[in-house]
Amino acid sequence: MTTPPTSTDAWREVGGVELSAILAGALDAFSELGYHGTTVRDIAGRVGVTVPALYYHHPNKEAILLALLNLATEDIGWRVEEAIAEAGDDVVLALGNIVEAVVIHMTHWLKLALLDTEARYLSPQNRPAYALPRRKIEASVTAVIEHGVAMGVFTTPEPREASRALLGMLQWITRWYRPDGALSQADVSAKYTALARDLVGTVR
Amino acid sequence: MTTPPTSTDAWREVGGVELSAILAGALDAFSELGYHGTTVRDIAGRVGVTVPALYYHHPNKEAILLALLNLATEDIGWRVEEAIAEAGDDVVLALGNIVEAVVIHMTHWLKLALLDTEARYLSPQNRPAYALPRRKIEASVTAVIEHGVAMGVFTTPEPREASRALLGMLQWITRWYRPDGALSQADVSAKYTALARDLVGTVR
Repeated sequence: MTTPPTSTDAWREVGGVELSAILAGALDAFSELGYHGTTVRDIAGRVGVTVPALYYHHPNKEAILLALLNLATEDIGWRVEEAIAEAGDDVVLALGNIVEAVVIHMTHWLKLALLDTEARYLSPQNRPAYALPRRKIEASVTAVIEHGVAMGVFTTPEPREASRALLGMLQWITRWYRPDGALSQADVSAKYTALARDLVGTVR
Repeated sequence: MTTPPTSTDAWREVGGVELSAILAGALDAFSELGYHGTTVRDIAGRVGVTVPALYYHHPNKEAILLALLNLATEDIGWRVEEAIAEAGDDVVLALGNIVEAVVIHMTHWLKLALLDTEARYLSPQNRPAYALPRRKIEASVTAVIEHGVAMGVFTTPEPREASRALLGMLQWITRWYRPDGALSQADVSAKYTALARDLVGTVR
């Protein structure tokens, strides 16, 4: 479950994603061995439960992957919505808040965020359950950019593609960010806010 | 082997990566099952060779992954170098050429480009063989952006991070691009060239 926000800037708090022991063990296993390299037995062994006990909670391995991906999407989703809402009509602030919200997720829930690479293994019937909430987040970001273009604050000729590109470059942070690396979470937020403002062609 | 460029705009030609039967089979297997989900036996079975025959060409599974990743890096690398060289001192053109070069790789060698997600499974001793040539490409892109800033054509306060973000948003294309989708390779190149120009703060 994702903890709902309780105050206007709850979206800046790093907590929020609560993993059951089974999901935490599955996340570790998927991270080390990939989705197809992990068996339900591996997960049960890590958690210290029997395979039947694991199946009592989750019907199959794919349901576990989907549950983890959904936790990530929910965490990004509510942060981004709150971050946008907090900024009111200030689209430049809204854009910076979006970057900060996504950076918090990517840097604090790094292993979960990296699991996004395994989403391609979802079967066709489970894919929409992953893709539709992701597209909703992208649409919210697009709406902010389009609003900025309508106000004459942003000049990008490609609001929809800028939204997808922004989320792509933020997702890419998971590929190089290390908690003990040269850049802190705040540094990353500041740098990517500056980049995002340029990306959408913010009028100076 | 990557075919070296033979004319100044060879970097725009979509060919170039030549996969042996074993590497082609391994690429298919890794794409469907991930690196850890694939066995050497799976690869041999797909290609129709015995496991010992496969080991005659490649010492182990990781060497096969590294060979595939290196083909991808080489293909991006020489395209980007040629694309930059062709533009001479015109940094705006160089930036657009870089985007076009990377988009050609990402869209035409989609399965190979997507294999980039498996690079994290390389062992520490093999990681530099993957990471150093990648960093060289990033440094070439950074140099173009820094040159543009020095000339007063680009205004980004973050040339190095802009380079990494640009390559990240271009890598992200592999996540949504489909050859039969709404956007052609030329559409993607044009849209991402416009986005890249904004990203680095090109003076209008």
